[in-house]
Amino acid sequence: MSRSNGRNGDELRPMKLTAGVNKYAEGSVFIEVGETKVICTATVEERVPPFMKGQGKGWVTAEYSMLPRATHSRNQREAARGKLTGRTMEIQRLIGRALRSVVNLQALGERTITLDCDVIQADGGTRTTSITGSFVALAIAVNKIATQHKLPVFPITDFLASVSVGVVGEKALLDLNYEEDSKAKVDMNLVMTGSGKYVELQGTGEESPFDRNELDQLLSLGEQGILQMIERQKEVLGPIADKIGAGRTGAGA
Amino acid sequence: MSRSNGRNGDELRPMKLTAGVNKYAEGSVFIEVGETKVICTATVEERVPPFMKGQGKGWVTAEYSMLPRATHSRNQREAARGKLTGRTMEIQRLIGRALRSVVNLQALGERTITLDCDVIQADGGTRTTSITGSFVALAIAVNKIATQHKLPVFPITDFLASVSVGVVGEKALLDLNYEEDSKAKVDMNLVMTGSGKYVELQGTGEESPFDRNELDQLLSLGEQGILQMIERQKEVLGPIADKIGAGRTGAGA
Amino acid sequence: MSRSNGRNGDELRPMKLTAGVNKYAEGSVFIEVGETKVICTATVEERVPPFMKGQGKGWVTAEYSMLPRATHSRNQREAARGKLTGRTMEIQRLIGRALRSVVNLQALGERTITLDCDVIQADGGTRTTSITGSFVALAIAVNKIATQHKLPVFPITDFLASVSVGVVGEKALLDLNYEEDSKAKVDMNLVMTGSGKYVELQGTGEESPFDRNELDQLLSLGEQGILQMIERQKEVLGPIADKIGAGRTGAGA
Amino acid sequence: MSRSNGRNGDELRPMKLTAGVNKYAEGSVFIEVGETKVICTATVEERVPPFMKGQGKGWVTAEYSMLPRATHSRNQREAARGKLTGRTMEIQRLIGRALRSVVNLQALGERTITLDCDVIQADGGTRTTSITGSFVALAIAVNKIATQHKLPVFPITDFLASVSVGVVGEKALLDLNYEEDSKAKVDMNLVMTGSGKYVELQGTGEESPFDRNELDQLLSLGEQGILQMIERQKEVLGPIADKIGAGRTGAGA
Amino acid sequence: MSRSNGRNGDELRPMKLTAGVNKYAEGSVFIEVGETKVICTATVEERVPPFMKGQGKGWVTAEYSMLPRATHSRNQREAARGKLTGRTMEIQRLIGRALRSVVNLQALGERTITLDCDVIQADGGTRTTSITGSFVALAIAVNKIATQHKLPVFPITDFLASVSVGVVGEKALLDLNYEEDSKAKVDMNLVMTGSGKYVELQGTGEESPFDRNELDQLLSLGEQGILQMIERQKEVLGPIADKIGAGRTGAGA
Amino acid sequence: MSRSNGRNGDELRPMKLTAGVNKYAEGSVFIEVGETKVICTATVEERVPPFMKGQGKGWVTAEYSMLPRATHSRNQREAARGKLTGRTMEIQRLIGRALRSVVNLQALGERTITLDCDVIQADGGTRTTSITGSFVALAIAVNKIATQHKLPVFPITDFLASVSVGVVGEKALLDLNYEEDSKAKVDMNLVMTGSGKYVELQGTGEESPFDRNELDQLLSLGEQGILQMIERQKEVLGPIADKIGAGRTGAGA
Repeated sequence: MSRSNGRNGDELRPMKLTAGVNKYAEGSVFIEVGETKVICTATVEERVPPFMKGQGKGWVTAEYSMLPRATHSRNQREAARGKLTGRTMEIQRLIGRALRSVVNLQALGERTITLDCDVIQADGGTRTTSITGSFVALAIAVNKIATQHKLPVFPITDFLASVSVGVVGEKALLDLNYEEDSKAKVDMNLVMTGSGKYVELQGTGEESPFDRNELDQLLSLGEQGILQMIERQKEVLGPIADKIGAGRTGAGA
Repeated sequence: MSRSNGRNGDELRPMKLTAGVNKYAEGSVFIEVGETKVICTATVEERVPPFMKGQGKGWVTAEYSMLPRATHSRNQREAARGKLTGRTMEIQRLIGRALRSVVNLQALGERTITLDCDVIQADGGTRTTSITGSFVALAIAVNKIATQHKLPVFPITDFLASVSVGVVGEKALLDLNYEEDSKAKVDMNLVMTGSGKYVELQGTGEESPFDRNELDQLLSLGEQGILQMIERQKEVLGPIADKIGAGRTGAGA
Repeated sequence: MSRSNGRNGDELRPMKLTAGVNKYAEGSVFIEVGETKVICTATVEERVPPFMKGQGKGWVTAEYSMLPRATHSRNQREAARGKLTGRTMEIQRLIGRALRSVVNLQALGERTITLDCDVIQADGGTRTTSITGSFVALAIAVNKIATQHKLPVFPITDFLASVSVGVVGEKALLDLNYEEDSKAKVDMNLVMTGSGKYVELQGTGEESPFDRNELDQLLSLGEQGILQMIERQKEVLGPIADKIGAGRTGAGA
Repeated sequence: MSRSNGRNGDELRPMKLTAGVNKYAEGSVFIEVGETKVICTATVEERVPPFMKGQGKGWVTAEYSMLPRATHSRNQREAARGKLTGRTMEIQRLIGRALRSVVNLQALGERTITLDCDVIQADGGTRTTSITGSFVALAIAVNKIATQHKLPVFPITDFLASVSVGVVGEKALLDLNYEEDSKAKVDMNLVMTGSGKYVELQGTGEESPFDRNELDQLLSLGEQGILQMIERQKEVLGPIADKIGAGRTGAGA
Repeated sequence: MSRSNGRNGDELRPMKLTAGVNKYAEGSVFIEVGETKVICTATVEERVPPFMKGQGKGWVTAEYSMLPRATHSRNQREAARGKLTGRTMEIQRLIGRALRSVVNLQALGERTITLDCDVIQADGGTRTTSITGSFVALAIAVNKIATQHKLPVFPITDFLASVSVGVVGEKALLDLNYEEDSKAKVDMNLVMTGSGKYVELQGTGEESPFDRNELDQLLSLGEQGILQMIERQKEVLGPIADKIGAGRTGAGA
Repeated sequence: MSRSNGRNGDELRPMKLTAGVNKYAEGSVFIEVGETKVICTATVEERVPPFMKGQGKGWVTAEYSMLPRATHSRNQREAARGKLTGRTMEIQRLIGRALRSVVNLQALGERTITLDCDVIQADGGTRTTSITGSFVALAIAVNKIATQHKLPVFPITDFLASVSVGVVGEKALLDLNYEEDSKAKVDMNLVMTGSGKYVELQGTGEESPFDRNELDQLLSLGEQGILQMIERQKEVLGPIADKIGAGRTGAGA
């Protein structure tokens, strides 16, 4: 099967990371994965949410939103509807959980980092793109904290990126765009660390349940895609990349 | 490691299904899995949501809620808060998606079945228990429709059940209760069909990323647990069980 | 007039009280009055709402909800609508007010007891059934507090139960089921104490105003029904029943 | 006991009804009962709510609100809070139900009358004052409809007014002001027709349950107060008063 | 062009100010401008909003609402809709901002004055009428504070009133009623001080952009109207009027 | 006074318009005015809101939002708060009204154009920048409609841009950035057409009322700024610019 844009089944879309796109945020990146475009900013605040108070630990959380015309037809703003959709809540919980898995919250100290992922244009994979981009914004912000407060341990324990995989027709594909995603019988989002471990794995076969063999194929496709993405994160992070994982003890503890 | 209730690592909690607990609902079941107790009712309505109109197909959806004192300490009602939590939305989307995967919506015709899962008491695994119980309520309701409307094809294409698995300490465990769940480093919910295929697979290693080997162990544990659960569903469904899968063409199409 | 279930006009429906149905709640009861079924739990919290702070007194409040399929056709969840209906608010205010009338808040001390009344199945009289059941859950919870904190005075000053009465056709009936209630020209809810005093009395003749004579008949019917109900409460409460009313000074003061 | 304003226990506060205070509304009245002041307007719309469609009958409903500074200290607006309080819902349901009891909805035809009761200043009895005032605004509006559409039967079947009674100290009092109301052990709102029948009767003894004897006293006090109020309604309604009750068949049917 | 009510183009509608209409509020006025009628109350509270804390300064804010039947057809209550309209928010922000411009917040001390403007009947110019009336209620309330707390400086620095002007047909008109307003091509609201300075100036030519010449005409019309209004404020304020402007230093600073 | 960025008092900030930044929207532009950056998209839908139905005319409306970290410190999302702030509502009403003033709604036909203005980074003047940018997105979208549907008259009647002016210290300044805006005693937003007429004029002197002379200065400053902005709009619009104003009859009628 030839993919709409001439890609091979195991090929990522072109990916571009531009750091420092917001002059106020402690960390920011503009990530483009094919035609999917997301602004990720990291905001540092010197306080933690009520349920974390007094534990000497920090917190990392995320919010996600799409501009109304990020998609083919215009979507009503959630602010106008007066509430978040279930889809948005699910995605922002996922992003926050994924990022926390590679942050040593103890080492971070009592501060909160909020990642805002605003989708400017959507062509499939907005949640995985948000995770991959947010990790870079997070690392930049954490580096600022680590430098300014002379933290003894760098609080990020590993790299982290995310990609979607799926079965379209009978073929397993990496990094689905919108057109492919809407035809997929099986759809899976993977979040992995730089050391190749799973952080999140969400597979759905609403249209067609899948067997162990298909699962194995999808996991392998995803793994190699994520490792490529992490190479791009390293490039844009430069010297910050070298600090990641130095303090890899008690991540998230 | 000995489990709190003397179970082996690969052992399910005692499970009890009581059908017909609601005199109004088209299908109903009271499911008890250990100390987790959920009332599942299936309501049939002769209309579909706006986005499904005119396609000649039916719809299956779910709602989930916990009574305020289902848990150790009392939770505020979502009706009093004025909105659903992200957790609730995530769970009810999951239940609906899972059930739709084994329903031939074409064969169902233009009607909606709503599964209400109300957790009376929670001791871990409320979402998986809701899926396992809902399937039974759904089958009873679908059987009523099939009989009354003389449907040519029975619209349920396969059995469906769900269980949680996780890594506690260094050990993979089946069917975690609340105490185990809160100590788990890796937590995974599996939804599978009677023919052993995956419908949903959601694994999270927020506390500690996991490798391929751990994943394989968890998948095997879950599979055998689900197949046992499906045996119990067959018992309570009696003759209805025999109709399931007869129309296994174009499920969810 | 013969009633649908062969009852006499002055006869209660069969009533069953099952205590201890929830393993977490400080008090719980499952009450069945005919086909109306309600789970009542009492939660004790060692704090009072802001408007009661610093008065050395406790508080008793209630919440009420119906499962979506408690009735013939499915009702939308109030959590999904984003707000409580006027009917729900009216009922939960009534339950709280009624229970407070037999609690010596001073003797209770600075703690809050919340009664949750969740209607599993509705066949008329859900608010009166909630009051009758809640009283039992409350008494069990208060007994736990009294024992644990060695309260000098038992904070419940009297028994309390509730029943509906109404005029259907030309006949005054006790304890209306749904079918009777929907045909009633006059509808009245009574809440009375064990010593036969009125706590709440809400009569409505929207369909047909009623005269003093009809009122007198309804009050007498209700009184004898409530006294029977209180006998059942005593049975299920056992030794706790003997403590009620011992501290009957300054109830609710 | 001498009452704060020199009234006898069975004496109403001074009551003033001014009709026609709003130039747009189909009926309007400004009612003053002592220092309690309410603007009541009746709006006629040539449609009925969805649940009444196609029955050939009309509908009467009410809304109630207090200006923020109607009371000693300022209350937050319900519009600013984003929702109605339970108290407001309870009151507006009561007003609507009470008025419908004296309207022949069949004779009214498929139209809705909405009574808006806006409390300008509150000194006790705002719900009863709203009912008494609304009845006058309703009668004026109905008269306009009856004249304009040449209705064969005048759709109002009887007069209707409302008053509060209560037990303060050991004494039963008529028409409580705020100060008396806040000291009352028993508090009762009565709504009666011109022919002396009960439409609504809501008594509460949260502070102190009451017996049959006290109830009888309160009912007698209230009845004579309401009959006086109806005399004042007749004066302000003039010739419209003579039409009321002419069509007294099937009220509310 | 002869105006509907025989007014000249530069003529105000009859204006009436009645002070002291609310027995609880620290300041109150009932303002009638033609058929537009607004109750304005000023509430004093001895605290400031969170963002003003600890600055030793006071705050003045406003809320605005229309009774549902203030207009030709009935409007849904904002409390029933569950949120304020954009129009209401815009108006109450304008009223608050305008009043603050003539209050020396430092001299007021750490207290908040809330102006509630409730429109009883609307016939054009409700926002300008609210400002003109609120100023009087504010002055009465401030005078009470100044007297009671012996403030060294009277905190109101100047008079303040407001009027609308507009272009209807080709003619500039002062103080538009509803009929004129709905035909106006250009619509402008002016708020000015007693010393003839602009506080707010909001002109809109949605139907037809306007040039500098038309603008100048409108500004002159408005100025003379406002100065007349201020004369009426002085009359109703009596001796309080003489205190205004005495402390005219650092207004709003 | 030398301005922070070396500008003269009557000098605009550097302004850049990039068209076509969104691949789905019918019109889109990225506008940068100094450090203020806004994405404007125009969405065309072949329907009108209910209140416009059946009039044979179109509608133009706008929505406005700021990304949470568009500003120095992070703002809570309005979607998370569950409602729009008054500021947002005021701004989006202004943008819609301003744009409609230069659209011949009759010529547009029964379709709606929604302008979404999403502020990526804010440094003062976000509402004026949104108007100036939206006009370009609107013109591109209208051109698509005019071409595709062969409209006989081009529905845009004139150019439109907007700028802020203000008094800082004693000096009138053009195009204030955030720092200047927060020190301004007088703040005015102007919207003007290409033919130099006023569409909106909103001046506020909350900190210090202003006189006619200051007003005149501000108006002159603003006018020349807007005319420069319109030159830049013409450049980016290219041949579309020539069509604007061709159908200048009955604008907005």
